[in-house]
Parts: sequence; C-alpha cells; structure tokens
Amino acid sequence: MRPFKKAAIIGIGLIGGSIALALKKKNLAKQVVGVSRKEKNLALAKRIGAIDAGSSDPQIISGADLVILAMPPSAILDKAAALAGFLADDALVIDVASTKESIVEKLDKIFKNFVGAHPLAGSQKRGINNSQADIFRKSVCILTPSAKTNPAALARAKALWQKLGAKTATMTPKTHDQVLAFISHLPHAIAFSLINTVPSGHLRFASGGLKDITRIAASDAQLWSDIFLTNRKNIQKGLEDFIRVLVKLEKAIEKNDRGSLVRILKQAKAKRDRLK
Amino acid sequence: MRPFKKAAIIGIGLIGGSIALALKKKNLAKQVVGVSRKEKNLALAKRIGAIDAGSSDPQIISGADLVILAMPPSAILDKAAALAGFLADDALVIDVASTKESIVEKLDKIFKNFVGAHPLAGSQKRGINNSQADIFRKSVCILTPSAKTNPAALARAKALWQKLGAKTATMTPKTHDQVLAFISHLPHAIAFSLINTVPSGHLRFASGGLKDITRIAASDAQLWSDIFLTNRKNIQKGLEDFIRVLVKLEKAIEKNDRGSLVRILKQAKAKRDRLK
Repeated sequence: MRPFKKAAIIGIGLIGGSIALALKKKNLAKQVVGVSRKEKNLALAKRIGAIDAGSSDPQIISGADLVILAMPPSAILDKAAALAGFLADDALVIDVASTKESIVEKLDKIFKNFVGAHPLAGSQKRGINNSQADIFRKSVCILTPSAKTNPAALARAKALWQKLGAKTATMTPKTHDQVLAFISHLPHAIAFSLINTVPSGHLRFASGGLKDITRIAASDAQLWSDIFLTNRKNIQKGLEDFIRVLVKLEKAIEKNDRGSLVRILKQAKAKRDRLK
Repeated sequence: MRPFKKAAIIGIGLIGGSIALALKKKNLAKQVVGVSRKEKNLALAKRIGAIDAGSSDPQIISGADLVILAMPPSAILDKAAALAGFLADDALVIDVASTKESIVEKLDKIFKNFVGAHPLAGSQKRGINNSQADIFRKSVCILTPSAKTNPAALARAKALWQKLGAKTATMTPKTHDQVLAFISHLPHAIAFSLINTVPSGHLRFASGGLKDITRIAASDAQLWSDIFLTNRKNIQKGLEDFIRVLVKLEKAIEKNDRGSLVRILKQAKAKRDRLK
C-alpha cells in the first residue's frame, strides 16, 4: 500500500485519535490533519503526535486523499454533505460508526469512494487521551460495502485496516446492524438498565460480577443515544427476544422447576465457554 | 483469636478450599479436615496443603470446634441435621452459601452456635484447583445473625473472617437475600439469558463488551439453580423491576425520544462511575 498524501480525521476521540496515531506511527500517510470542535482535543492530538495540524474549520481537509469520519452517527449523517465540497472525487472516505445502514445509504450518495467500516475495538472509555496506535491490533474491523461501493475503494479500505492491525470481515450494512444489535447494542441497553435497577444503597456490596456486567454502562450517553436511535428496529427485535428468554427463566424459578432451570443455565454456560 | 483445635470443611470447592488453605497458612487451626464426595478433590486438597486429612465419611468431623459448610445451598439444607450428631454443642458452625434466609432459619434449630456468612469473593470459576489462601483479602463477608444467634459465636465468626482478610458487614438474613437478589442473583439471571439470546453465529464477532457482560454466565448451572430456587421471591422482584426499567428504555427508542434516552443513559453512567 502506498502512503496517503494527506489523511483527514474528523472527530478526534478514542477511535479517531487512535487511527491518527497509527497512521503517523506506521507512516501510512505523509500528512495527518484533524477536525474537532474542541480546541483542547486538537491541542492534545498535536502534542502526542497524532496530527500535524488541526482546526475546527473543515476547510483544513481540502485536498485529502483519505478521510476518516470518526464522529457519532448523527454527526456523520448531519455533516457529510458539507464536507464533500472540500474533496476530490477520488478521495477515499471511510466512516467508523457503530451503526451502518442509514449512514451507508446516505453517504453512498454523497461520496464517490465511500466505504462503511466498524472497527470492533472501542470500550467504555473515550476521548483522545485514551487513544493508542495499537488499539486495532488483533481486533476485527467489519467493512460494509453496498451495491454502490466502488470495488477499488473497498480494496484500499481493506488494505488500510489490515495495515492498522485489524482482521477484516465483510457484510452488508443491513446484516451488520442486525448482528451488532445482538452482540453490542442489546448488551449496552441491558447494562444501562441493570445499573439503573439496582438500588443505590446496595452498590457498596457490589463485587466483581456486578462490576463486569455493568462496565459498559459507563459508556457515553450521547453516543449511545445516537447508536440506539440509528438502529431502532434491530435493537427492538433484540430486546423482545431477550425479554422472552428472561421471562422463561423467571417462570422456571417461579414454578420451582429445577429441571428446566438447570437445562437453561447449562445451555448458557456451554455457549459462554465458547467465547473464552 | 486463639487457633481452633480442629477445623472441618464440608465441601472442598473454590470457597471451601480457599478457607482451608487460609486456615493452614495463617495457623488459625491446628488441624484441618475436609469432607467431599469426590476423592479427587480430597487428594488435591491434601497435595496443596489445604487439609491434613479428608474423607467422604462425615464422621471425620467428630470433635471439630470449627465447621465450615461450603456446599451448595440445597446440600446444606439437606445434610446439616446429619452432621450435628458428630459435633459438641460449643462447635462454631458457619455456612458460606449465597442465600441466607432459608438456611439460617433451618440451621438455627440444628446447631447451638451457628452463624450464617456470605463471603463476596467467588467468581465464575469453581473447584479446589482455583482456590487461593488470599481470596478473601479486601473482600467483604456479610454475616447474617438472627434473633437466635449466640452473640459470642457471632463475635468469633467475625474475628475469624477478619483474620481471613475480609471486612465484615452485618445484616439480617432477610435483608441479605434482598440485597443479593439485586447485586448478584439478578445480574446472573441476566447474563445467562443474554448469552442464550445471542444467535450462535454472531458470537465470533463478540468483543470485550459482550465478553464482560456475559462472563458470569459461565457459572455453574447446579449451584446457580440452587441459588435461584432458595431466593425465589426476591429474584422475581428484581426481575420485575429490571424488565420495567428495560421496557422504559425500549419505549424511548421506539418513540425516537432522544431527550428521555439521554437522561436514562446519563443516570446509568453516573451510577456506574461510582462503582469504579
């Protein structure tokens, strides 16, 4: 892969900052610029060597041949059109949002060389101060080409993510949103709801189990509102399935039905043991 | 605290084995014997120096002045009466089960010096091979005296747990079961149900979030069936509360109500951030 001449990162948070750091460290781009509304983030990104220059003015991306959209889903949907004016048709544009269907549908119409991507490498932590160049190492990045995706752009995006250390998987935006609803969005909805259910006075007795199961409830409220609202149908489906399974367990407890209970719990343990 | 002359551990698993190891290591008992149906566990416990002698025959506990009941809740309820015949009235008997109300009610009638205890130090791992002498260090052990508990026995039990490294807290068996329903039993019910909800084919995309939230779903099915069935009413209350909170989140997503959603998620994050 030849290095990009100018990479532009829009949104200097955990993921945007980590991509910027990795692009610099691995010499994947000759110049890296950043766009953020927050002066503080730009200053920090510069200080840690993630970007060469930064601005709140999107004009700074002019002439970029690689653009990474690392804002929350709603900001990507709102701002993509305004960014297009600064870019040549052949610029490779990649977003890294956690929901894909609505974003890919809209951005396919705005950019000639757009590829939707979702690196499965976040955490409940956020912000440029938590970014790391090697955050994608051994992680999976899901690429979500559509019928409109330029195959050459897809190949370049794939090569880039592999250079960043990720394994790539490919699926349609629709499948991505269905899968992620179950493996990420439903778990977050559950974690937020569980911690909200536990009476505050009980929290001082919390041990490792409760801490682990609610860890992702410390995730950012604005970002996760965005994710929930841009994948509504699939998350509702996940919640309905989950409540059905939970009520089945509840009934077994209510009826003192040890046989069913052991069967349900053994199935769960076997499935969880496969995850390692 | 003077050392016990002879400590008997019934049930040589993660917790029983760890207590035995700590009693020996800290010289809290001159002799430690173990009872288990499993020859293999007794042999391993002897090899690692957790017990001096072991048997599947409960007669080995004769003359013990400290007895730790470290079996699953249903085994404690079933077997306590048969053990009493081997013990003098002044033997201190402590159980370590995760549910307390039914056990304390029954064992108060069987033993003169019984104290219910619940060390909050387990994990999804089990078995003597995972036991450690320092497992209770910095953990909390909840003691659950009843109106019938001998204050001198409670004081000795408290001193013992502190020697094992735990901080002690005291509450009634009823309060214990209400608190634990929310901070441990409800989370387990959720983890088991969540992993059972996720389609198997999606699991290969699981990242850290799903792994953390389902970690406790790898817990033992028999033990957790016991726990669920000996704390039914409180767990049902917890499940009802949780489903109500979850459905509220679902409604906010369904109605595209960003304001409510952000408020719910911020409340969750603030509460989780207090847990560290």
